[in-house]
Amino acid sequence: MTYGTHPKLIGILGGMGPLATVDFLEKVIRATPASQDQDHVPMIVHHVPQIPNRNLAVLDGHDAPFEPMLSGLRTLQRSGADAIAIPCNTAHAWFDRLAQETQVPLIHIADAVAQNVRKRGSGTSEVVLLATRGTIAAGIYTSRANGIADRIILPEDTVQVRIERIILAVKAGRIGEARDEASRVAEHLLSGQGDRLLLLACTELPIAFETSRFSSHLIDSSQALAEACIACSIGLQRPDVPHGRQPPTSAGP
Amino acid sequence: MTYGTHPKLIGILGGMGPLATVDFLEKVIRATPASQDQDHVPMIVHHVPQIPNRNLAVLDGHDAPFEPMLSGLRTLQRSGADAIAIPCNTAHAWFDRLAQETQVPLIHIADAVAQNVRKRGSGTSEVVLLATRGTIAAGIYTSRANGIADRIILPEDTVQVRIERIILAVKAGRIGEARDEASRVAEHLLSGQGDRLLLLACTELPIAFETSRFSSHLIDSSQALAEACIACSIGLQRPDVPHGRQPPTSAGP
Repeated sequence: MTYGTHPKLIGILGGMGPLATVDFLEKVIRATPASQDQDHVPMIVHHVPQIPNRNLAVLDGHDAPFEPMLSGLRTLQRSGADAIAIPCNTAHAWFDRLAQETQVPLIHIADAVAQNVRKRGSGTSEVVLLATRGTIAAGIYTSRANGIADRIILPEDTVQVRIERIILAVKAGRIGEARDEASRVAEHLLSGQGDRLLLLACTELPIAFETSRFSSHLIDSSQALAEACIACSIGLQRPDVPHGRQPPTSAGP
Repeated sequence: MTYGTHPKLIGILGGMGPLATVDFLEKVIRATPASQDQDHVPMIVHHVPQIPNRNLAVLDGHDAPFEPMLSGLRTLQRSGADAIAIPCNTAHAWFDRLAQETQVPLIHIADAVAQNVRKRGSGTSEVVLLATRGTIAAGIYTSRANGIADRIILPEDTVQVRIERIILAVKAGRIGEARDEASRVAEHLLSGQGDRLLLLACTELPIAFETSRFSSHLIDSSQALAEACIACSIGLQRPDVPHGRQPPTSAGP
């Protein structure tokens, strides 16, 4: 395996937020079949947390994150990235415009989630979308015909407020507080709800929900994007990672 | 705080190895005083694990890692990095030659460790150097007059073999095995040895030793480099991080 030919170099437009990016990178590494450094996925990570708040931009109807994100994509492109992933769901509000301005293929996180759900093969009749209001308003999961579930439902408003508080707690490094609240929210949304699943459609949320007792009822958008990056770079992944029990059937996302 | 003016963009020549890089990035993030994404250190991370094995190159006397590392540095330089850190101790065998070929200042991990030890202010009369044979042979800690300790001692050969097994276990993702052996090695080197400290001079080792009961007797080269990067980028750090209880007295490493 020689750098430059195979595997493909994956660009990561990250820093949105910082801990979420590190969690995502660790998922790429842990899901890669490797016995030494050289077996791992090569990545260039643009980790620039100064990109303006995506959620506020969508809700306020302004465009401040677009140019800094495009600048990051161009840096990754100049660095030789063969494909680029963005481990921030809300940033995907600008996905189509960013893709139009970039020569390198972008991997959409909702497509990665849809592929992950197909691999799980479990019944996913009802999925609750846990995300920022910006992700919900931009229709990142609901406007794409992606087959994630028969029915994607939104949490009631009081729960939505709690979800956003969990996200902000993770961004501020208050992980214990975020996890306690995530456990309570999972309990509230899942108890007695049969095969209902929670879609963690904000890359901060897996950090908060990873200690919940409902792990088998979670769809982790960050894990799904990590698996898509591995498939794109080296065409395979570890058979034993959570939510990735079956090898992918194709080499690309 | 606006990207592009202040803070400084830090380039990371990483992937050596992958989990060690992620552990290092997480240390940068956790040690940064931040209440929102935008307060964090901006970084460009060249995470290319295909760079040839540094340890074998030093021991076999060949130069294979040099050109790929230089290529990575040049990518970081082109991406606008204001300073560059390399979270791999053994890679520092090429530090002086890399620094000569690069226009951007490089932060030396042994200098970061020396600064960290000065900040601790504890008596460090005797330090055991836990590192690859390549780091030891290249004199990365012993050839620089850095004031880390009155006496830097090397482990006996049977312990050195165990250290390198721990490093390889982390690189292969066998974290539980690495931690069990690290606990035994710490016990062996520290029991009844008074104020002796262990210098974790390989960025895989903190991942293995973090669960040891001797955490107050460890000097973590990865944590020290993270603090140096924060000081270089934003000139301050959280007052409550391990080994960083006092704020730095100057803005740069």
